[in-house]
Amino acid sequence: MLPKAVKIVEVGPRDGLQNEQKLVPLAAKIALIEQLADAGCSVIESGSFVSPKWVPQMADSAAVFQQIKRQNKVRYTALTPNLHGLQQAIAAQVDEVAVFGAASEAFSQKNINCSITESLERFIPVMELAQKHQLPVRGYVSCVLGCPYEGNVDPQKVAEVSQKLLEMGCYEISLGDTIGVGTPVKTQHMLNAVLSVVPVDKLAVHFHDTYSQALVNILVALQQGISVVDSAVSGLGGCPYAKGASGNVATEDLVYMLDGMDIETGINLNKLTQAGLNMMHALGRQSNSKVARALNT
Amino acid sequence: MLPKAVKIVEVGPRDGLQNEQKLVPLAAKIALIEQLADAGCSVIESGSFVSPKWVPQMADSAAVFQQIKRQNKVRYTALTPNLHGLQQAIAAQVDEVAVFGAASEAFSQKNINCSITESLERFIPVMELAQKHQLPVRGYVSCVLGCPYEGNVDPQKVAEVSQKLLEMGCYEISLGDTIGVGTPVKTQHMLNAVLSVVPVDKLAVHFHDTYSQALVNILVALQQGISVVDSAVSGLGGCPYAKGASGNVATEDLVYMLDGMDIETGINLNKLTQAGLNMMHALGRQSNSKVARALNT
Repeated sequence: MLPKAVKIVEVGPRDGLQNEQKLVPLAAKIALIEQLADAGCSVIESGSFVSPKWVPQMADSAAVFQQIKRQNKVRYTALTPNLHGLQQAIAAQVDEVAVFGAASEAFSQKNINCSITESLERFIPVMELAQKHQLPVRGYVSCVLGCPYEGNVDPQKVAEVSQKLLEMGCYEISLGDTIGVGTPVKTQHMLNAVLSVVPVDKLAVHFHDTYSQALVNILVALQQGISVVDSAVSGLGGCPYAKGASGNVATEDLVYMLDGMDIETGINLNKLTQAGLNMMHALGRQSNSKVARALNT
Repeated sequence: MLPKAVKIVEVGPRDGLQNEQKLVPLAAKIALIEQLADAGCSVIESGSFVSPKWVPQMADSAAVFQQIKRQNKVRYTALTPNLHGLQQAIAAQVDEVAVFGAASEAFSQKNINCSITESLERFIPVMELAQKHQLPVRGYVSCVLGCPYEGNVDPQKVAEVSQKLLEMGCYEISLGDTIGVGTPVKTQHMLNAVLSVVPVDKLAVHFHDTYSQALVNILVALQQGISVVDSAVSGLGGCPYAKGASGNVATEDLVYMLDGMDIETGINLNKLTQAGLNMMHALGRQSNSKVARALNT
């Protein structure tokens, strides 16, 4: 039942850095992305085309895409929350874009001030323009295992939003435990609900490691046959000593597990670790990856 | 297949503190043990009767057992590597003792300067005296998923040593991934080998979290029906910034997972977290438990 190979979607340069308090210089971002590609990462979420007022950390995404040396076998992707963002992404020659919806009404209202249904409708013109440019679109679903405002989230709601994103034309749905509260049995129930409406080869999982549960939930997903996993080098995205810390699962820790299970990732763990350590040097703090810390001692 | 309840063996005061660089004052150890009992821990490994020359951190174990306020429902246990240690443990009125064997010949030779077989033979008088005093004896097997000197460890060797400890009279066998290198498939293969010779209700697992793999391996053990898990509050036993860091899995992170799976532990997570934070204050560093850090922000 376990997959023979896993596609890792490296989200450190976007989901990771976006949630770091310290602004990272453009050169360090470019170095990170190029080193991740050298380490064998095949999909790298490299930026986000959003208002710099809301997300100052991503204000230089156009420059990132313009200046990185690209490798043919690597897909450089970006988050595009609206039509203007998509137009910028197209101009920046991104390989793939992503849209998102929440599985929690309260989260949708608090974060983007509209219902889940409205938020998905707003993406229709984005999907249309992306399709015209033959750009693959990924769909993120957030709060799939819990919401900071309403607590538990109904697995049926996750299934519903996932199905809608699929019907709108997303080629892959990434299920995100945004606040990292998921545990194995709940993860399995949620996945069962989603798998009843979305084929397993269209699904990815995206866990934050706030409560140390990311890897164990990823194992549950692998046991269900899911073979696409999001992660961030060094567990970027949450400083362990900051309030509400909720970094992504560390790519190094994920690759260590998959290597041990003889599941192919195409990633060289030593090069990956070095890429992460270089970024942590720029951020001026210790890595969130235990593998990186153990290999670096 | 998952157990309805898990017995957690809290090893922080012994396996944890023994591997901390900083010596902890007697009063702080006593406070930790009493707070762990108040939090609902039912088995607390509270000390080790070994030569203070080899393990200075455990030199005050007799005083610990003498001075702790004991609760009736709690078992206060100790490691007793030889007859002299057992005699001290009996004088200190411990509720249970433990002996150990390695699954790796190289580890046994390097650490205690004898073969595995010789090391087990040395425990025969310990077992006899313990039985005379009706003291339950636990058996630890170390290096079950890897050895720092010989690398891979044969699951058959783990099964053999486990079976011998059981035959010698140990009531429970705790399988230890001493250097934390295990991953899920290897864990499953090792457990399959051991379960072919030891009944599931006699087995416990003991994972160190050096490479972030402890919880995921514990899930594999639970899926095999194992219902006894060792852990250390705050992930005591390895400073994240020290060479060769290899702390135990944090009890807080384990309890968070089990709570989420509706598996009973009898432990109050908030009280447990506070007990750990008090000890980290004495040690002067941050907790290794992500749950403790998240709950404390």
